[in-house]
Amino acid sequence: MRNIKLTLAYDGTDFAGFQVQPKARTVQGELSAALSKVLGEEVKVIGAGRTDAGVHARAQVVNFHTAARIPVERLPAALNSCLPPDVSVWRAEEVPADFHARYSAKSKVYRYLIALGPYPSPFLRRFSWHLPFSLDVEAMRAAAAELTGERDFTSFCAAGGAAKNHVRTLKRLAVAEEGGLIAVEAAADGFLYKMVRNLVGTLVEVGRGALRPEDMGRILAARDRKAAGPTAPPQGLILWQIDYEQSPVKETPGGVALTVPWACVKITL
Amino acid sequence: MRNIKLTLAYDGTDFAGFQVQPKARTVQGELSAALSKVLGEEVKVIGAGRTDAGVHARAQVVNFHTAARIPVERLPAALNSCLPPDVSVWRAEEVPADFHARYSAKSKVYRYLIALGPYPSPFLRRFSWHLPFSLDVEAMRAAAAELTGERDFTSFCAAGGAAKNHVRTLKRLAVAEEGGLIAVEAAADGFLYKMVRNLVGTLVEVGRGALRPEDMGRILAARDRKAAGPTAPPQGLILWQIDYEQSPVKETPGGVALTVPWACVKITL
Repeated sequence: MRNIKLTLAYDGTDFAGFQVQPKARTVQGELSAALSKVLGEEVKVIGAGRTDAGVHARAQVVNFHTAARIPVERLPAALNSCLPPDVSVWRAEEVPADFHARYSAKSKVYRYLIALGPYPSPFLRRFSWHLPFSLDVEAMRAAAAELTGERDFTSFCAAGGAAKNHVRTLKRLAVAEEGGLIAVEAAADGFLYKMVRNLVGTLVEVGRGALRPEDMGRILAARDRKAAGPTAPPQGLILWQIDYEQSPVKETPGGVALTVPWACVKITL
Repeated sequence: MRNIKLTLAYDGTDFAGFQVQPKARTVQGELSAALSKVLGEEVKVIGAGRTDAGVHARAQVVNFHTAARIPVERLPAALNSCLPPDVSVWRAEEVPADFHARYSAKSKVYRYLIALGPYPSPFLRRFSWHLPFSLDVEAMRAAAAELTGERDFTSFCAAGGAAKNHVRTLKRLAVAEEGGLIAVEAAADGFLYKMVRNLVGTLVEVGRGALRPEDMGRILAARDRKAAGPTAPPQGLILWQIDYEQSPVKETPGGVALTVPWACVKITL
């Protein structure tokens, strides 16, 4: 049996989340169906993490064991020909037998996009949280610094999660601003249920002045979901990267294009 | 009667084009419905140009005459509250009585986005033409230079257009490349039916080596649609700007955010 690791991107808008569910369109369901067509056998798809309905992925990772002999380098094209256009497999690798997409992961990186401005953009509506007011980015950064490190994140954990231990190491919580857009990047050894969206919702409360950076210590100490800010909506969130080595978080090379760069690509006159 | 000019953006994916049609979802149809709700009267919406099914707009322009007294600065928010999320009005101005969105236009700018790479991106699929091979951008630029100027563009005009005179002044045809994406910008005093998509389809033939830059003169001289390359698909095209002054084309300030800048926004570590 070979153990195969796949890296895939998806637009989560029209999915009921990653994890397979009866009678709902899910990423795992679509991928399983494509794999059984391509491999000629049913395989169990192990995902690195569940993303909720509406949440996207640039580099979700799954693995599966198979007796099929298809060369690994042919898998992405073969699978993409069976997958709908909102899912794309962009890497396939044969990995050691003990590799497990979820248990072998050392850290994960998520990004969250906020679009500012008076009116929502039709082009960003699937991929961002539109806010019609300005945010104090410096205050958000100061709050983010208070949240970074090894902490009990109970106040940022939604009900319904399976984890009993709520201590996680938030390695990075960075806030970037450019051209009316704010991006938040969160990197940790693991995330609790809806943790990134709860962190972002709380940072937005700081950005609009409803909370102060120095409130973060109190919120963490409360160990009570009600102490933190609201949950940011799903469409701004993207699973960016999963690292399987203990090394510092580094960018995965390659992958699918992510920008709609009408405004990014410079037109030479 | 006041004459009101609106500037609007739309994701054309789920529209049967700009122009109103019976039993089809169109931008003009949605806008007319929103205007009649907000103004309390039916108005005739004059569009600057029809975009085809699947084609987007950053800055489509319309005007209409109304007796309604709503302050012009309140119109965008009022209309957006009635419009679906794939259309957004981002500017409203009162203009002189003789302003006509179509007849007063002096020039238009379109952009076209091509996404290169082995697999299509789920994030760009609505807004780009995916090509799984590389293109010779220098050859495309050389061909673009041969096409620029005052020309008879019959070879680039699809059947079904209303124009009898096929001479247009193509002021600019620029090709930019960045990060696996190619953007083509076309500016002209007017465009024939599917002209931009036919120009892009022909430039791609040059980029992949099936045509040479020096073939452009022969193609123009043929005055025959069959002489040029195929029509590029609609989803890569966006109506970028419409200019109502004879001055050099300049960027419209403001507007809605256009990028999905996960890869553009720099994350500060």
